[in-house]
Amino acid sequence: MILAVCLNPALDITYDVPHFEIGVAQRVRQVTRRAGGKGVNVASVLQSLGVDTAVSGPVGGAVGDELIDDLRDRMLRSEFLRVDGSTRRTVTVVAGGEATVLNEPGPQLTEAEWSAFTAQFASIARDADIITLSGSLPRGVAASAYGELIEISHRHDAVVILDCEGEPLVEALHTAPDIVKINVHEAAATTLIETDSTAGVFAAAEQLHVLGAAEVVITRGAAGVVAHTREGRLLGSTTRTVAGNPTGAGDAFTAGLAAATADSLPWPERLRRASACAAGAVARPVAGDVDPSIARDHERSTTIEEFTP
Amino acid sequence: MILAVCLNPALDITYDVPHFEIGVAQRVRQVTRRAGGKGVNVASVLQSLGVDTAVSGPVGGAVGDELIDDLRDRMLRSEFLRVDGSTRRTVTVVAGGEATVLNEPGPQLTEAEWSAFTAQFASIARDADIITLSGSLPRGVAASAYGELIEISHRHDAVVILDCEGEPLVEALHTAPDIVKINVHEAAATTLIETDSTAGVFAAAEQLHVLGAAEVVITRGAAGVVAHTREGRLLGSTTRTVAGNPTGAGDAFTAGLAAATADSLPWPERLRRASACAAGAVARPVAGDVDPSIARDHERSTTIEEFTP
Repeated sequence: MILAVCLNPALDITYDVPHFEIGVAQRVRQVTRRAGGKGVNVASVLQSLGVDTAVSGPVGGAVGDELIDDLRDRMLRSEFLRVDGSTRRTVTVVAGGEATVLNEPGPQLTEAEWSAFTAQFASIARDADIITLSGSLPRGVAASAYGELIEISHRHDAVVILDCEGEPLVEALHTAPDIVKINVHEAAATTLIETDSTAGVFAAAEQLHVLGAAEVVITRGAAGVVAHTREGRLLGSTTRTVAGNPTGAGDAFTAGLAAATADSLPWPERLRRASACAAGAVARPVAGDVDPSIARDHERSTTIEEFTP
Repeated sequence: MILAVCLNPALDITYDVPHFEIGVAQRVRQVTRRAGGKGVNVASVLQSLGVDTAVSGPVGGAVGDELIDDLRDRMLRSEFLRVDGSTRRTVTVVAGGEATVLNEPGPQLTEAEWSAFTAQFASIARDADIITLSGSLPRGVAASAYGELIEISHRHDAVVILDCEGEPLVEALHTAPDIVKINVHEAAATTLIETDSTAGVFAAAEQLHVLGAAEVVITRGAAGVVAHTREGRLLGSTTRTVAGNPTGAGDAFTAGLAAATADSLPWPERLRRASACAAGAVARPVAGDVDPSIARDHERSTTIEEFTP
């Protein structure tokens, strides 16, 4: 089983309006509502790949109920812990192909809630082969939070894939995450290394490895992927580009990587699968969805080679 | 008891953002959440006036739960009927004093739900002295809906104050509502009479009376109020203006009018009280609230005179 952790889940609300103008009252033509947040997106893609999966995190309030309802409708196994604060909403207003996003702050967790969460996490981690940890930390939780979860995961022999940036990432590196997966902007912001060149991206990956990550994958959008692995330094590129919505593509990459890692595939295969999932996600309008035929085409057109500087 | 009917309630969500820009993802600094919709605002003001009140309408989904939770927190008696569709949200983004409003469509009611509502309404109407009917009709409900509720109200000897425009108003006039209260723009849109002059506003009121309304009140914002009553044609004006948020001022007017009607006050007193509530509402940032000291000042500075063309 692959467990996707989502410490900052959200109810993603999308408003379709004919024309959006500031300072005006306007009618929403269509409302869509979907459970979101990076970990939920990862679990959603894993489910579409046919992988046994569960998603876990803190939820609260009536917005939390809506989120759980949506996961139930989608038959996605959820193991959320109830907290006092209310789960956040995101509101995306789409007008003429342009998206305006409003992100509510998430709930503030108490110390007691965090320890209840780690206890619940430990009991689920027992059954997990792979655990993905994605996204920012909720308010009230220490920067060492992912480190705690990684230590618990390792006690239960689960492989951890970590996707976060900044201080929570730096703190987590002390606990030796198995795979760190971030995008090139997050890599630059966290390591302060220039990532304009391929050599620069590998240097950032190298630094994250030296600081504790066993293996490191850095995604570069349409420019491909860079990986510092036990099998060597690998560079992935593609001849195809996909137009669409990049939101959630990184989470689809994590899902593909987790599924391929669970299958113990060699690294070139893992990167090809993960890149294919990301491309298939770009082709779909909502995060957490993958277009399987775009993904298959993309997998065939992706090349993975050893990097020689 | 005064019963405020709210057929299209909403959960009003307000986002405070430092700077609002289209096409950009932005963080919300503060989120406030409040039960709204015209009838809920009327009940809220009646409660603040110390009047025994209840609010009724259809609610559904998790958003409906949030709305009911808020009314419970505010100790406002609610008698809502559960329906299948989800209660709508409104999202107001406030940045630098400018408000951008997104109105979701409300739920579609089925015929069975509407008849369940009228049955429930009949049982509550028994205990009501005054019934206010405010706002647009939900989807799926016939334009004659307010007419049905007026007939039920009259069978239970309740006085009806109706605040709606267009076809639902025209249809309701056949059932002789006791008081029709609308603003000058709604009066013009419904009667197609020019309301630029005071004589024009009285002509519109006269037409609504001829079509069936026993008495008619037309509000003109800061320009005062016009009333076609059994006590004569009355014109209200004030020497003071209040700066602030006009949203909900009309509902506060309805609440003040309902409270004064329940007290069997003569019409000049009713109009003074109602205008005072509206002014007190403008001074408050959220709909359904009234500033009592502004309302008192305003009541003293309002003059009601007989209109002689």
